[in-house]
Amino acid sequence: MSGSVAIIGLGPGDPRLLTGAAQAALDAAEDLIGYIPYVARVPERAGLRRHASDNRVEVDRARHALELAASGRRVAVVSGGDPGVFAMAAAVFEAVEAGDPAWRHLPITVEPGITAMLAAAARLGAPLGGDFCALSLSDNLKPWDVITARLDAVLRADLVVALYNPISSARPWQLGAALSLAAGIRAPETPVMLARAVSRPDENIRVLTLAQAREAPADMATLVIIGASATRLIQRGPELRPYVYTPRSVPEAEPA
Amino acid sequence: MSGSVAIIGLGPGDPRLLTGAAQAALDAAEDLIGYIPYVARVPERAGLRRHASDNRVEVDRARHALELAASGRRVAVVSGGDPGVFAMAAAVFEAVEAGDPAWRHLPITVEPGITAMLAAAARLGAPLGGDFCALSLSDNLKPWDVITARLDAVLRADLVVALYNPISSARPWQLGAALSLAAGIRAPETPVMLARAVSRPDENIRVLTLAQAREAPADMATLVIIGASATRLIQRGPELRPYVYTPRSVPEAEPA
Repeated sequence: MSGSVAIIGLGPGDPRLLTGAAQAALDAAEDLIGYIPYVARVPERAGLRRHASDNRVEVDRARHALELAASGRRVAVVSGGDPGVFAMAAAVFEAVEAGDPAWRHLPITVEPGITAMLAAAARLGAPLGGDFCALSLSDNLKPWDVITARLDAVLRADLVVALYNPISSARPWQLGAALSLAAGIRAPETPVMLARAVSRPDENIRVLTLAQAREAPADMATLVIIGASATRLIQRGPELRPYVYTPRSVPEAEPA
Repeated sequence: MSGSVAIIGLGPGDPRLLTGAAQAALDAAEDLIGYIPYVARVPERAGLRRHASDNRVEVDRARHALELAASGRRVAVVSGGDPGVFAMAAAVFEAVEAGDPAWRHLPITVEPGITAMLAAAARLGAPLGGDFCALSLSDNLKPWDVITARLDAVLRADLVVALYNPISSARPWQLGAALSLAAGIRAPETPVMLARAVSRPDENIRVLTLAQAREAPADMATLVIIGASATRLIQRGPELRPYVYTPRSVPEAEPA
Protein backbone atom coordinates (compact mmCIF):
# COMPACT_ATOMS: atom_id res chain seq x y z
CA MET A 1 0.00 0.00 0.00
CA SER A 2 1.35 3.42 -0.86
CA GLY A 3 1.63 6.23 1.62
CA SER A 4 0.16 9.73 1.70
CA VAL A 5 0.31 13.05 3.51
CA ALA A 6 -2.79 14.92 4.70
CA ILE A 7 -2.08 18.42 6.03
CA ILE A 8 -4.97 19.09 8.36
CA GLY A 9 -6.40 22.26 9.89
CA LEU A 10 -7.61 21.67 13.44
CA GLY A 11 -9.33 25.05 13.66
CA PRO A 12 -8.99 27.37 16.66
CA GLY A 13 -9.37 24.71 19.35
CA ASP A 14 -12.95 23.64 20.02
CA PRO A 15 -13.35 20.25 18.30
CA ARG A 16 -16.81 21.37 17.13
CA LEU A 17 -15.01 23.84 14.81
CA LEU A 18 -13.29 21.02 12.92
CA THR A 19 -14.74 20.12 9.51
CA GLY A 20 -16.03 16.64 8.82
CA ALA A 21 -13.35 16.16 6.16
CA ALA A 22 -10.58 17.09 8.61
CA GLN A 23 -11.97 14.64 11.17
CA ALA A 24 -12.14 11.88 8.55
CA ALA A 25 -8.51 12.54 7.57
CA LEU A 26 -7.44 12.33 11.23
CA ASP A 27 -9.37 9.07 11.63
CA ALA A 28 -7.55 7.56 8.62
CA ALA A 29 -4.02 8.50 9.77
CA GLU A 30 -1.37 6.08 10.96
CA ASP A 31 1.20 8.75 11.93
CA LEU A 32 0.43 12.11 13.47
CA ILE A 33 3.02 14.88 13.11
CA GLY A 34 2.95 18.43 14.47
CA TYR A 35 3.82 21.01 17.06
CA ILE A 36 3.30 19.62 20.58
CA PRO A 37 0.07 21.49 21.53
CA TYR A 38 -1.62 20.62 18.22
CA VAL A 39 -0.74 16.91 18.45
CA ALA A 40 -2.08 17.02 22.02
CA ARG A 41 -5.49 18.05 20.72
CA VAL A 42 -5.96 14.78 18.82
CA PRO A 43 -7.22 11.92 21.04
CA GLU A 44 -4.96 8.88 21.33
CA ARG A 45 -6.15 5.69 19.69
CA ALA A 46 -4.75 2.27 18.80
CA GLY A 47 -2.83 2.31 15.53
CA LEU A 48 -1.94 6.01 15.65
CA ARG A 49 1.75 6.82 16.19
CA ARG A 50 2.33 10.32 17.56
CA HIS A 51 5.36 12.46 16.63
CA ALA A 52 5.10 15.78 18.48
CA SER A 53 7.90 18.29 18.04
CA ASP A 54 8.84 21.73 19.25
CA ASN A 55 8.09 24.89 17.32
CA ARG A 56 10.55 26.37 14.78
CA VAL A 57 11.43 23.01 13.19
CA GLU A 58 8.73 23.17 10.55
CA VAL A 59 10.84 22.01 7.62
CA ASP A 60 12.38 19.10 9.58
CA ARG A 61 8.85 18.08 10.54
CA ALA A 62 7.72 18.37 6.91
CA ARG A 63 10.61 16.18 5.69
CA HIS A 64 9.83 13.62 8.38
CA ALA A 65 6.23 13.48 7.17
CA LEU A 66 7.30 13.01 3.55
CA GLU A 67 9.82 10.30 4.44
CA LEU A 68 7.21 8.37 6.39
CA ALA A 69 4.73 8.70 3.52
CA ALA A 70 7.36 7.55 1.03
CA SER A 71 7.85 4.45 3.19
CA GLY A 72 4.16 3.65 2.80
CA ARG A 73 2.57 5.27 5.87
CA ARG A 74 -0.62 7.37 5.93
CA VAL A 75 0.62 10.54 7.60
CA ALA A 76 -1.37 13.43 9.07
CA VAL A 77 0.43 16.74 9.63
CA VAL A 78 -1.65 18.91 11.96
CA SER A 79 -1.77 22.69 12.32
CA GLY A 80 -3.99 24.91 14.44
CA GLY A 81 -6.41 27.04 12.43
CA ASP A 82 -5.98 26.57 8.68
CA PRO A 83 -2.77 24.82 7.55
CA GLY A 84 -2.37 27.24 4.62
CA VAL A 85 -2.33 30.41 6.77
CA PHE A 86 1.05 30.93 8.48
CA ALA A 87 1.19 27.22 9.23
CA MET A 88 2.47 23.85 8.02
CA ALA A 89 1.23 23.62 4.41
CA ALA A 90 3.85 25.99 2.96
CA ALA A 91 6.60 24.19 4.92
CA VAL A 92 5.54 20.83 3.44
CA PHE A 93 5.58 22.18 -0.12
CA GLU A 94 8.97 23.82 0.48
CA ALA A 95 10.25 20.39 1.54
CA VAL A 96 8.65 18.74 -1.50
CA GLU A 97 10.31 21.18 -3.88
CA ALA A 98 13.75 20.84 -2.28
CA GLY A 99 13.57 17.11 -1.59
CA ASP A 100 13.45 13.72 -3.28
CA PRO A 101 11.78 14.09 -6.73
CA ALA A 102 9.70 10.98 -5.90
CA TRP A 103 7.90 13.02 -3.22
CA ARG A 104 6.16 14.97 -6.02
CA HIS A 105 4.18 11.84 -6.82
CA LEU A 106 2.96 11.19 -3.27
CA PRO A 107 -0.72 11.96 -2.70
CA ILE A 108 -0.61 15.17 -0.66
CA THR A 109 -3.89 16.72 0.37
CA VAL A 110 -4.70 19.81 2.42
CA GLU A 111 -7.79 19.87 4.64
CA PRO A 112 -8.73 23.48 5.30
CA GLY A 113 -9.69 24.73 8.74
CA ILE A 114 -11.15 27.75 10.51
CA THR A 115 -8.22 30.13 10.74
CA ALA A 116 -7.84 32.40 13.79
CA MET A 117 -9.10 35.57 12.08
CA LEU A 118 -12.36 33.90 11.03
CA ALA A 119 -12.90 32.45 14.50
CA ALA A 120 -12.19 35.81 16.15
CA ALA A 121 -14.36 37.70 13.67
CA ALA A 122 -17.27 35.34 14.30
CA ARG A 123 -17.09 35.98 18.06
CA LEU A 124 -16.94 39.75 17.57
CA GLY A 125 -19.66 40.26 14.93
CA ALA A 126 -18.39 40.97 11.43
CA PRO A 127 -15.17 43.02 11.67
CA LEU A 128 -13.88 41.52 8.39
CA GLY A 129 -17.05 42.61 6.55
CA GLY A 130 -15.09 44.73 4.05
CA ASP A 131 -11.73 44.22 2.34
CA PHE A 132 -9.09 42.82 4.70
CA CYS A 133 -5.62 41.33 4.92
CA ALA A 134 -3.68 38.88 7.04
CA LEU A 135 -0.09 39.76 7.94
CA SER A 136 2.35 37.88 10.14
CA LEU A 137 4.29 40.16 12.48
CA SER A 138 7.02 37.57 12.95
CA ASP A 139 10.38 38.76 11.70
CA ASN A 140 11.91 35.31 12.09
CA LEU A 141 11.34 34.64 8.39
CA LYS A 142 11.15 38.09 6.80
CA PRO A 143 12.90 41.41 7.38
CA TRP A 144 11.18 43.87 9.69
CA ASP A 145 11.31 46.60 7.03
CA VAL A 146 9.22 44.41 4.69
CA ILE A 147 6.67 43.98 7.48
CA THR A 148 6.41 47.70 8.16
CA ALA A 149 6.23 48.56 4.44
CA ARG A 150 3.33 46.11 4.01
CA LEU A 151 1.58 47.32 7.13
CA ASP A 152 1.93 50.93 6.02
CA ALA A 153 0.47 50.09 2.60
CA VAL A 154 -2.59 48.23 3.89
CA LEU A 155 -3.30 50.81 6.60
CA ARG A 156 -3.22 53.62 4.03
CA ALA A 157 -5.44 51.56 1.69
CA ASP A 158 -7.98 51.32 4.56
CA LEU A 159 -8.13 47.54 4.76
CA VAL A 160 -9.04 45.79 7.99
CA VAL A 161 -5.79 44.22 9.20
CA ALA A 162 -5.51 40.85 10.96
CA LEU A 163 -2.12 40.44 12.64
CA TYR A 164 -0.91 36.87 13.23
CA ASN A 165 2.07 36.03 15.48
CA PRO A 166 1.90 39.49 17.06
CA ILE A 167 4.31 38.85 19.90
CA SER A 168 6.40 36.20 21.64
CA SER A 169 9.03 36.13 24.36
CA ALA A 170 11.71 36.40 21.67
CA ARG A 171 9.84 39.17 19.83
CA PRO A 172 8.52 41.46 22.57
CA TRP A 173 8.41 44.87 20.82
CA GLN A 174 6.98 44.17 17.33
CA LEU A 175 3.29 44.53 18.20
CA GLY A 176 3.90 47.85 19.95
CA ALA A 177 5.82 49.08 16.93
CA ALA A 178 3.03 47.96 14.58
CA LEU A 179 0.33 49.70 16.63
CA SER A 180 2.47 52.81 16.82
CA LEU A 181 2.72 52.78 13.03
CA ALA A 182 -1.08 52.33 12.85
CA ALA A 183 -1.56 55.29 15.21
CA GLY A 184 0.24 57.50 12.70
CA ILE A 185 -2.30 56.57 10.02
CA ARG A 186 -5.61 55.68 11.71
CA ALA A 187 -7.61 57.62 14.30
CA PRO A 188 -7.01 56.89 18.02
CA GLU A 189 -10.62 55.73 18.41
CA THR A 190 -10.24 53.06 15.67
CA PRO A 191 -11.50 49.72 17.08
CA VAL A 192 -8.74 47.23 17.79
CA MET A 193 -9.65 43.73 18.91
CA LEU A 194 -7.38 41.37 20.80
CA ALA A 195 -8.74 37.84 20.51
CA ARG A 196 -6.87 35.27 22.57
CA ALA A 197 -7.41 31.49 22.45
CA VAL A 198 -10.81 31.77 20.72
CA SER A 199 -13.06 28.76 21.45
CA ARG A 200 -10.66 27.37 24.06
CA PRO A 201 -11.32 27.37 27.83
CA ASP A 202 -9.02 30.37 28.34
CA GLU A 203 -10.65 32.47 25.58
CA ASN A 204 -10.30 36.20 26.20
CA ILE A 205 -11.60 38.83 23.79
CA ARG A 206 -11.07 42.54 24.23
CA VAL A 207 -12.58 45.36 22.16
CA LEU A 208 -10.42 48.43 22.61
CA THR A 209 -9.55 51.63 20.83
CA LEU A 210 -6.26 51.87 18.99
CA ALA A 211 -5.02 54.21 21.76
CA GLN A 212 -5.96 51.65 24.46
CA ALA A 213 -4.54 48.71 22.53
CA ARG A 214 -1.10 50.31 22.54
CA GLU A 215 -1.05 49.80 26.33
CA ALA A 216 -2.70 46.36 26.41
CA PRO A 217 -0.90 43.07 27.02
CA ALA A 218 -0.96 40.36 24.34
CA ASP A 219 0.79 37.05 23.80
CA MET A 220 1.54 34.41 21.14
CA ALA A 221 -2.01 33.04 21.31
CA THR A 222 -3.51 36.45 20.49
CA LEU A 223 -4.88 37.46 17.09
CA VAL A 224 -5.09 41.23 16.63
CA ILE A 225 -7.62 42.89 14.33
CA ILE A 226 -7.17 46.57 13.50
CA GLY A 227 -10.41 48.07 12.20
CA ALA A 228 -10.71 50.14 9.03
CA SER A 229 -12.02 53.71 9.09
CA ALA A 230 -15.59 52.41 8.70
CA THR A 231 -15.40 49.68 11.38
CA ARG A 232 -18.12 50.34 13.98
CA LEU A 233 -19.26 49.22 17.41
CA ILE A 234 -22.87 48.49 18.33
CA GLN A 235 -23.23 49.09 22.05
CA ARG A 236 -25.48 46.67 23.92
CA GLY A 237 -25.34 48.03 27.47
CA PRO A 238 -22.86 47.62 30.31
CA GLU A 239 -23.20 43.84 30.68
CA LEU A 240 -22.42 42.85 27.11
CA ARG A 241 -19.44 43.26 24.82
CA PRO A 242 -20.36 45.49 21.87
CA TYR A 243 -20.73 43.94 18.45
CA VAL A 244 -18.02 45.03 16.01
CA TYR A 245 -18.64 45.15 12.29
CA THR A 246 -17.30 46.68 9.10
CA PRO A 247 -20.07 47.74 6.70
CA ARG A 248 -20.05 46.20 3.25
CA SER A 249 -20.37 49.61 1.58
CA VAL A 250 -17.74 52.25 1.01
CA PRO A 251 -19.41 55.59 0.24
CA GLU A 252 -18.40 57.78 -2.69
CA ALA A 253 -15.80 60.35 -1.68
CA GLU A 254 -17.18 63.82 -0.93
CA PRO A 255 -16.31 66.28 -3.69
CA ALA A 256 -13.31 68.33 -2.56
CA MET B 1 -39.19 30.87 24.71
CA SER B 2 -37.09 33.66 23.26
CA GLY B 3 -35.77 33.72 19.74
CA SER B 4 -32.27 33.88 18.32
CA VAL B 5 -30.30 34.36 15.12
CA ALA B 6 -27.42 32.08 14.08
CA ILE B 7 -25.50 33.31 11.04
CA ILE B 8 -24.00 30.16 9.60
CA GLY B 9 -21.16 29.51 7.16
CA LEU B 10 -21.91 26.56 4.89
CA GLY B 11 -18.38 26.41 3.49
CA PRO B 12 -17.63 26.05 -0.22
CA GLY B 13 -20.22 23.38 -0.98
CA ASP B 14 -19.22 19.86 0.03
CA PRO B 15 -21.13 19.11 3.26
CA ARG B 16 -17.96 17.48 4.62
CA LEU B 17 -16.43 20.97 4.76
CA LEU B 18 -19.06 22.17 7.25
CA THR B 19 -17.96 22.42 10.89
CA GLY B 20 -19.73 20.44 13.58
CA ALA B 21 -20.87 23.66 15.23
CA ALA B 22 -22.41 24.93 11.99
CA GLN B 23 -24.22 21.62 11.52
CA ALA B 24 -25.55 21.75 15.10
CA ALA B 25 -26.82 25.30 14.55
CA LEU B 26 -28.60 24.19 11.35
CA ASP B 27 -30.15 21.26 13.22
CA ALA B 28 -31.50 23.60 15.93
CA ALA B 29 -33.08 26.11 13.53
CA GLU B 30 -36.81 26.62 13.03
CA ASP B 31 -36.47 29.14 10.17
CA LEU B 32 -33.87 29.08 7.42
CA ILE B 33 -33.10 32.32 5.59
CA GLY B 34 -30.71 32.93 2.73
CA TYR B 35 -29.94 33.31 -0.94
CA ILE B 36 -31.71 30.59 -2.99
CA PRO B 37 -28.69 28.33 -3.78
CA TYR B 38 -27.48 28.36 -0.16
CA VAL B 39 -30.90 27.50 1.27
CA ALA B 40 -31.08 24.70 -1.33
CA ARG B 41 -27.96 23.12 0.17
CA VAL B 42 -29.70 22.46 3.50
CA PRO B 43 -31.79 19.27 3.48
CA GLU B 44 -35.52 19.68 4.13
CA ARG B 45 -36.87 18.38 7.43
CA ALA B 46 -40.05 18.60 9.48
CA GLY B 47 -40.19 21.74 11.60
CA LEU B 48 -37.86 23.79 9.38
CA ARG B 49 -39.47 26.69 7.51
CA ARG B 50 -37.50 27.80 4.46
CA HIS B 51 -37.30 31.43 3.29
CA ALA B 52 -35.11 31.57 0.19
CA SER B 53 -34.63 34.94 -1.49
CA ASP B 54 -32.87 36.38 -4.48
CA ASN B 55 -29.46 37.99 -4.29
CA ARG B 56 -29.02 41.75 -3.66
CA VAL B 57 -31.63 41.93 -0.93
CA GLU B 58 -29.23 41.21 1.91
CA VAL B 59 -30.50 43.89 4.28
CA ASP B 60 -34.18 42.95 3.73
CA ARG B 61 -33.22 39.35 4.44
CA ALA B 62 -31.34 40.41 7.58
CA ARG B 63 -34.31 42.43 8.86
CA HIS B 64 -36.62 39.50 8.19
CA ALA B 65 -34.34 37.25 10.26
CA LEU B 66 -34.28 39.73 13.15
CA GLU B 67 -38.08 40.19 13.08
CA LEU B 68 -38.64 36.44 13.19
CA ALA B 69 -36.16 36.10 16.07
CA ALA B 70 -37.85 38.95 17.94
CA SER B 71 -41.13 37.06 17.59
CA GLY B 72 -39.55 34.07 19.34
CA ARG B 73 -38.23 31.93 16.48
CA ARG B 74 -34.83 30.24 16.28
CA VAL B 75 -33.56 31.58 12.96
CA ALA B 76 -30.61 30.41 10.87
CA VAL B 77 -29.21 32.79 8.24
CA VAL B 78 -27.02 30.85 5.83
CA SER B 79 -24.12 32.01 3.66
CA GLY B 80 -21.76 30.10 1.43
CA GLY B 81 -18.17 30.06 2.69
CA ASP B 82 -17.72 32.10 5.86
CA PRO B 83 -20.55 34.47 6.75
CA GLY B 84 -18.10 37.19 7.81
CA VAL B 85 -16.27 37.35 4.46
CA PHE B 86 -18.27 39.30 1.83
CA ALA B 87 -21.44 37.60 3.06
CA MET B 88 -24.43 37.92 5.39
CA ALA B 89 -22.89 38.70 8.81
CA ALA B 90 -22.14 42.36 8.06
CA ALA B 91 -25.64 42.79 6.60
CA VAL B 92 -27.21 41.44 9.79
CA PHE B 93 -25.20 43.78 12.00
CA GLU B 94 -26.03 46.73 9.72
CA ALA B 95 -29.71 45.86 10.24
CA VAL B 96 -29.22 45.52 14.00
CA GLU B 97 -27.60 48.94 14.25
CA ALA B 98 -30.27 50.66 12.14
CA GLY B 99 -33.24 48.74 13.52
CA ASP B 100 -35.35 48.20 16.64
CA PRO B 101 -33.12 48.77 19.74
CA ALA B 102 -34.57 45.56 21.22
CA TRP B 103 -32.73 43.61 18.50
CA ARG B 104 -29.45 44.42 20.29
CA HIS B 105 -30.53 42.07 23.07
CA LEU B 106 -31.35 39.10 20.86
CA PRO B 107 -28.81 36.27 21.03
CA ILE B 108 -26.95 36.58 17.72
CA THR B 109 -24.17 34.11 17.03
CA VAL B 110 -21.90 33.64 14.01
CA GLU B 111 -20.73 30.15 13.05
CA PRO B 112 -17.59 30.48 10.94
CA GLY B 113 -17.05 28.49 7.77
CA ILE B 114 -14.37 27.62 5.22
CA THR B 115 -14.27 30.69 3.02
CA ALA B 116 -13.59 30.33 -0.73
CA MET B 117 -9.95 31.42 -0.58
CA LEU B 118 -9.08 28.80 2.04
CA ALA B 119 -10.87 26.07 0.09
CA ALA B 120 -9.15 27.09 -3.15
CA ALA B 121 -5.75 27.37 -1.47
CA ALA B 122 -6.09 23.89 0.03
CA ARG B 123 -6.76 22.41 -3.42
CA LEU B 124 -3.80 24.21 -4.95
CA GLY B 125 -1.12 23.64 -2.30
CA ALA B 126 -0.32 26.66 -0.15
CA PRO B 127 -0.60 29.80 -2.29
CA LEU B 128 -1.58 31.88 0.78
CA GLY B 129 1.57 30.78 2.64
CA GLY B 130 2.81 34.37 3.04
CA ASP B 131 0.99 37.63 3.76
CA PHE B 132 -2.25 37.95 1.81
CA CYS B 133 -5.43 39.95 1.38
CA ALA B 134 -9.03 39.44 0.35
CA LEU B 135 -10.65 42.09 -1.84
CA SER B 136 -14.11 42.14 -3.37
CA LEU B 137 -14.11 43.35 -6.98
CA SER B 138 -17.79 44.22 -6.83
CA ASP B 139 -18.44 47.90 -7.36
CA ASN B 140 -22.08 47.57 -6.37
CA LEU B 141 -21.23 48.73 -2.85
CA LYS B 142 -18.01 50.71 -3.25
CA PRO B 143 -16.61 53.05 -5.89
CA TRP B 144 -14.37 51.51 -8.54
CA ASP B 145 -11.59 53.99 -7.78
CA VAL B 146 -11.45 52.71 -4.17
CA ILE B 147 -11.11 49.17 -5.50
CA THR B 148 -8.27 50.06 -7.86
CA ALA B 149 -6.46 52.12 -5.20
CA ARG B 150 -6.59 49.17 -2.81
CA LEU B 151 -5.53 46.70 -5.47
CA ASP B 152 -2.63 48.91 -6.49
CA ALA B 153 -1.48 49.19 -2.86
CA VAL B 154 -1.55 45.45 -2.11
CA LEU B 155 0.08 44.55 -5.42
CA ARG B 156 2.93 46.98 -4.76
CA ALA B 157 3.27 45.64 -1.19
CA ASP B 158 3.73 42.14 -2.71
CA LEU B 159 0.83 40.48 -0.90
CA VAL B 160 -0.91 37.47 -2.40
CA VAL B 161 -4.33 38.77 -3.51
CA ALA B 162 -7.58 36.80 -3.34
CA LEU B 163 -10.30 38.42 -5.45
CA TYR B 164 -13.89 37.69 -4.47
CA ASN B 165 -16.87 38.53 -6.73
CA PRO B 166 -14.55 38.94 -9.72
CA ILE B 167 -17.22 39.11 -12.40
CA SER B 168 -20.95 38.85 -13.06
CA SER B 169 -23.27 39.48 -15.99
CA ALA B 170 -23.83 43.00 -14.68
CA ARG B 171 -20.09 43.56 -14.07
CA PRO B 172 -18.36 42.02 -17.08
CA TRP B 173 -15.17 44.13 -17.31
CA GLN B 174 -13.92 44.53 -13.74
CA LEU B 175 -11.79 41.36 -13.58
CA GLY B 176 -10.06 42.23 -16.85
CA ALA B 177 -9.33 45.72 -15.55
CA ALA B 178 -7.96 44.31 -12.29
CA LEU B 179 -5.66 41.86 -14.08
CA SER B 180 -4.54 44.62 -16.40
CA LEU B 181 -3.62 46.72 -13.36
CA ALA B 182 -1.76 43.69 -11.93
CA ALA B 183 0.14 43.27 -15.20
CA GLY B 184 1.53 46.78 -14.78
CA ILE B 185 3.02 45.80 -11.39
CA ARG B 186 3.73 42.05 -11.41
CA ALA B 187 5.63 39.94 -13.94
CA PRO B 188 3.69 38.25 -16.79
CA GLU B 189 4.73 34.80 -15.48
CA THR B 190 3.22 35.46 -12.00
CA PRO B 191 0.96 32.50 -11.13
CA VAL B 192 -2.75 33.33 -11.21
CA MET B 193 -5.24 30.71 -10.09
CA LEU B 194 -8.89 30.60 -11.10
CA ALA B 195 -10.77 28.33 -8.70
CA ARG B 196 -14.40 27.75 -9.61
CA ALA B 197 -16.97 25.93 -7.45
CA VAL B 198 -14.35 24.30 -5.23
CA SER B 199 -15.59 21.03 -3.68
CA ARG B 200 -18.77 21.05 -5.78
CA PRO B 201 -19.46 18.64 -8.67
CA ASP B 202 -18.59 21.32 -11.24
CA GLU B 203 -15.27 22.23 -9.60
CA ASN B 204 -12.76 23.64 -12.07
CA ILE B 205 -9.31 24.85 -11.07
CA ARG B 206 -6.85 26.46 -13.45
CA VAL B 207 -3.24 27.42 -12.75
CA LEU B 208 -2.21 30.05 -15.28
CA THR B 209 0.28 32.85 -15.69
CA LEU B 210 -0.90 36.41 -15.25
CA ALA B 211 -0.58 36.86 -19.02
CA GLN B 212 -2.77 33.80 -19.68
CA ALA B 213 -5.32 34.74 -17.01
CA ARG B 214 -6.04 38.01 -18.79
CA GLU B 215 -7.52 35.95 -21.65
CA ALA B 216 -9.28 33.31 -19.53
CA PRO B 217 -13.01 33.14 -18.87
CA ALA B 218 -14.31 33.40 -15.31
CA ASP B 219 -17.72 33.76 -13.67
CA MET B 220 -19.43 34.65 -10.39
CA ALA B 221 -18.51 31.30 -8.82
CA THR B 222 -14.78 31.86 -9.45
CA LEU B 223 -12.28 32.89 -6.81
CA VAL B 224 -9.13 34.42 -8.29
CA ILE B 225 -5.76 34.26 -6.51
CA ILE B 226 -2.93 36.44 -7.82
CA GLY B 227 0.43 35.17 -6.60
CA ALA B 228 3.10 37.32 -4.98
CA SER B 229 6.59 37.66 -6.46
CA ALA B 230 7.73 34.59 -4.48
CA THR B 231 4.75 32.35 -5.34
CA ARG B 232 6.05 29.19 -7.04
CA LEU B 233 4.88 26.15 -8.95
CA ILE B 234 6.12 22.61 -8.31
CA GLN B 235 5.74 20.70 -11.56
CA ARG B 236 4.62 17.08 -11.24
CA GLY B 237 4.59 15.95 -14.84
CA PRO B 238 2.06 16.31 -17.65
CA GLU B 239 -0.75 14.36 -15.97
CA LEU B 240 -0.99 16.37 -12.76
CA ARG B 241 -1.72 19.98 -11.94
CA PRO B 242 1.36 21.61 -10.40
CA TYR B 243 1.36 22.45 -6.71
CA VAL B 244 1.33 26.20 -6.03
CA TYR B 245 2.82 27.64 -2.88
CA THR B 246 4.15 30.87 -1.43
CA PRO B 247 7.22 30.33 0.77
CA ARG B 248 7.00 31.50 4.37
CA SER B 249 10.28 33.41 4.09
CA VAL B 250 10.98 36.75 2.48
CA PRO B 251 14.72 37.16 1.89
CA GLU B 252 16.66 40.25 2.88
CA ALA B 253 16.88 42.74 0.03
CA GLU B 254 20.11 42.62 -1.96
CA PRO B 255 22.30 45.64 -1.22
CA ALA B 256 21.83 48.20 -4.01
